[in-house]
Amino acid sequence: MTVRTPLALAVACAATLLGHSAAQAQTSTVSVYGIVDAGIEYRTQNNAKGDGQWRLNSGGLNTSRLGFKGTEDLGGGLSAQFNLESEVVLDSGATGSAFFGRQAWVGLEDKDLGGLAFGRMSTAIYDYTLAHDFMGYAPQYSWLTATASVPATGFTSRIGNAIRYSNKFGAFKVTANAGLGEVAGSLNANTQRGVSVGYEAGALSAQLSYDDARTAATETATTSTSNRSLIASGSYKLDTVKLYGGVRATQRKPVGTVSASNPRYRSDLFWFGASAPLSQAITAFGGVYLENKHGTSSDPVMLAGKLHYNLSKRTWLYATASVARAKSDDGTQTLTGVFRDQTPVSGHQTGIGFGIQHRF
Amino acid sequence: MTVRTPLALAVACAATLLGHSAAQAQTSTVSVYGIVDAGIEYRTQNNAKGDGQWRLNSGGLNTSRLGFKGTEDLGGGLSAQFNLESEVVLDSGATGSAFFGRQAWVGLEDKDLGGLAFGRMSTAIYDYTLAHDFMGYAPQYSWLTATASVPATGFTSRIGNAIRYSNKFGAFKVTANAGLGEVAGSLNANTQRGVSVGYEAGALSAQLSYDDARTAATETATTSTSNRSLIASGSYKLDTVKLYGGVRATQRKPVGTVSASNPRYRSDLFWFGASAPLSQAITAFGGVYLENKHGTSSDPVMLAGKLHYNLSKRTWLYATASVARAKSDDGTQTLTGVFRDQTPVSGHQTGIGFGIQHRF
Amino acid sequence: MTVRTPLALAVACAATLLGHSAAQAQTSTVSVYGIVDAGIEYRTQNNAKGDGQWRLNSGGLNTSRLGFKGTEDLGGGLSAQFNLESEVVLDSGATGSAFFGRQAWVGLEDKDLGGLAFGRMSTAIYDYTLAHDFMGYAPQYSWLTATASVPATGFTSRIGNAIRYSNKFGAFKVTANAGLGEVAGSLNANTQRGVSVGYEAGALSAQLSYDDARTAATETATTSTSNRSLIASGSYKLDTVKLYGGVRATQRKPVGTVSASNPRYRSDLFWFGASAPLSQAITAFGGVYLENKHGTSSDPVMLAGKLHYNLSKRTWLYATASVARAKSDDGTQTLTGVFRDQTPVSGHQTGIGFGIQHRF
Repeated sequence: MTVRTPLALAVACAATLLGHSAAQAQTSTVSVYGIVDAGIEYRTQNNAKGDGQWRLNSGGLNTSRLGFKGTEDLGGGLSAQFNLESEVVLDSGATGSAFFGRQAWVGLEDKDLGGLAFGRMSTAIYDYTLAHDFMGYAPQYSWLTATASVPATGFTSRIGNAIRYSNKFGAFKVTANAGLGEVAGSLNANTQRGVSVGYEAGALSAQLSYDDARTAATETATTSTSNRSLIASGSYKLDTVKLYGGVRATQRKPVGTVSASNPRYRSDLFWFGASAPLSQAITAFGGVYLENKHGTSSDPVMLAGKLHYNLSKRTWLYATASVARAKSDDGTQTLTGVFRDQTPVSGHQTGIGFGIQHRF
Repeated sequence: MTVRTPLALAVACAATLLGHSAAQAQTSTVSVYGIVDAGIEYRTQNNAKGDGQWRLNSGGLNTSRLGFKGTEDLGGGLSAQFNLESEVVLDSGATGSAFFGRQAWVGLEDKDLGGLAFGRMSTAIYDYTLAHDFMGYAPQYSWLTATASVPATGFTSRIGNAIRYSNKFGAFKVTANAGLGEVAGSLNANTQRGVSVGYEAGALSAQLSYDDARTAATETATTSTSNRSLIASGSYKLDTVKLYGGVRATQRKPVGTVSASNPRYRSDLFWFGASAPLSQAITAFGGVYLENKHGTSSDPVMLAGKLHYNLSKRTWLYATASVARAKSDDGTQTLTGVFRDQTPVSGHQTGIGFGIQHRF
Repeated sequence: MTVRTPLALAVACAATLLGHSAAQAQTSTVSVYGIVDAGIEYRTQNNAKGDGQWRLNSGGLNTSRLGFKGTEDLGGGLSAQFNLESEVVLDSGATGSAFFGRQAWVGLEDKDLGGLAFGRMSTAIYDYTLAHDFMGYAPQYSWLTATASVPATGFTSRIGNAIRYSNKFGAFKVTANAGLGEVAGSLNANTQRGVSVGYEAGALSAQLSYDDARTAATETATTSTSNRSLIASGSYKLDTVKLYGGVRATQRKPVGTVSASNPRYRSDLFWFGASAPLSQAITAFGGVYLENKHGTSSDPVMLAGKLHYNLSKRTWLYATASVARAKSDDGTQTLTGVFRDQTPVSGHQTGIGFGIQHRF
């Protein structure tokens, strides 16, 4: 049993409160947490006629969510951990297509040997790159996980049937994850694999990630694709100003014959930005995302920024703004938007929004 | 940070219990609550042959539910609030079509400026009228939110993409809500708007509410309708007896041409009733709902009552009964039932039930 | 109110922690609990070509789950209880088809009169037999709830629209449950009924259960079936070794005419096994399941075993293994597998797995 004797009184207190015997109460270490984020947004060019649209959005800054997690100290530097996390769509009350589709895993962590987890989880490439995006993967408005352009480009945020190994070596940390394909007779079809290496030293944070997600149901399916992403990114702290930047190279590579209905395409996304406190309560973030879509001269670009006004350490108001466009020298457009979860219908779009985020 | 110094010991105790460091525990102020209500019911006239039916029902008295909510004191009379609430169908274990479809919002409340919330939520007309229904919106058996007759009449209980403003002015309180239509190029299509004014003074409680829900996908769609409700209601306490009553006027108003498939109809519902303690543990509630369906002489009426037997402040047994009928002088019937969530198949119906409700 | 005076301090502590006034905190006695179980498994013969398959499984030992439960002491030996429990599929993050499909009930329990509950719940036959299965209903690998053979045989684990009565009489306990059919004009169609009697005395535990689940939508539907199960089982403790065994007789009995598309079939399953500690941390479980499918000489058999390595009282590593086969003297096979949730495609199958389970 993991609860130590000096905590006996606290446990008795907890047991009483929870209507348990003391023995049972020792097992109740789950913590309930979440983010509730909602606000109003206006986007131009939101249908084929070019009309703008007002929206009440969930998760302008970060996806609203509800989660359950816990840690048990097993002694000798070993602990057990779990996490169940659900997306909550605050404007409709809906949840994700799989309820605990954000996180659903159990694992062990040893202070020397590292951590091992099984289940559904965010990818290493997602976890390691997050801190280097000046917009923090905000739906309003970041292109880092997925560019709002046609064809869509980006990396896999989450995987199921997955195993994850993580460890730290001095200033370095490394995480590898693999998603089993669960195809009889093949260990290759339908799999996902990724590895990330991070480095933290003083003001500098840097990382390198590779991820390969195979959508194939079988190894030889002609519609199989290998979706590869490579990201190098970092941040640097100059007194109170923080700089962010990186490059994301993605490739859709068909296993079978390349054709119009089964294309190969490549894209490089460059981003850089900065954040700085404007006052004790207000912090500003801003920068640019530039995509180079190979095989076209019409490359999307988005300027994005946001302001945080902190009401406490876990509640803040925010304002967000962005402008995206793509036009080549000959006038042709790549359909481009500011919101990664919507297929754009125009070559340019502007979005502004404000909202509130509370964490519990 | 919102946790004050005199609470340091309690927080340490809580932190221990939840497996947190003290710093983390300060952020865990979410509370888990709910209602579990189930029982047995018998209804006559439950199919075309006129057969009766026994049922094991969830929520005879109030919809079973599970929720998460929290408040953070931001200082200076300002606080942050959130609520996530799910319907639970206790007889099948199912939840609502949108998991947190009952409540899913975040907001701020200032002691002078009032409260502002964003997300999915109950309408003002729903919240203000609840206390004036002697049956308390009980599925067994209240007609106030929706009359169990053909065509169905009632008001919108919940809206998504919504903004709500509330405030108090002495004995008065006011709430306004608006649901954004999210139709590009229009701020009018598909919207919902409502406003309620309440008054509380000693034994008297009164309110006036208006709500207009537009189902249209576009402003000019010929199938668009505007569903309007106006309710005036109140309650008055005479020593231990409480009186309840009101009138609900509803109208379905097509935007396009009125036709057989796109009808306009109007209805007025009058209700009055009373509640009184029969003993220290038992309270009786009873009264009548009378609907005037415009354009027909066959107007539905329902007598309904219930008994509460309190086992504690949060657990009670209950019995419910009602009789509904509608027949005109010339013998034609309006299909009428006792259960608002079921389309009636007869001109009259009787229901009885008993169950248990527990709140946590 | 149920909270007693000696607990006032504990309640104040809890109230502070939960951000409640003391009065509110007294109502917050819900406890959050669960099982997170995941691991890797390899199964032979997993498609028509005979290929084996690696899998990342949720719930190798026990179904992963998240639950909410509470008890309120009503005084005089009476208490109110509720339970909401969801299946969690850890490898995808999904939940069951009905979110709280495992448990969703409210009830009362009196120390003399017994307990009465309403809602959706596990059947008595499921609850009483569980402790007598040496594999503890483990998906990897127990046949007790359902044999992995064609046609599938087993008993009903859970029912909705249900009422349950339970009581204890000395060394005996009894539970009866009934699921209402909710068919207008009939109290017989679509119903489920079960009763179990248990006996506990020293090292001996024994029980007898009967269950009849009728799938018919109406009493006279020709496709109606009555699915009956009778189980006698027990366990006996010999010092540190525990023995388990029993017999499960199941029958599919059509109400209408028996035909190829509406068959009648019967099956008897015999099982016996043992568990023993191998060290302070390791416990071994193993045994055999033998099915006699009436009308065929090709009867399925499965050898199954598992090892628990306890890291604490609520976290353990496990390894599981099993071999299943069915072949008659003339060489014909009954399709037979090791995993009850998968229709087998071969006459024999082998499975091995390892994983981690954590309870909170």
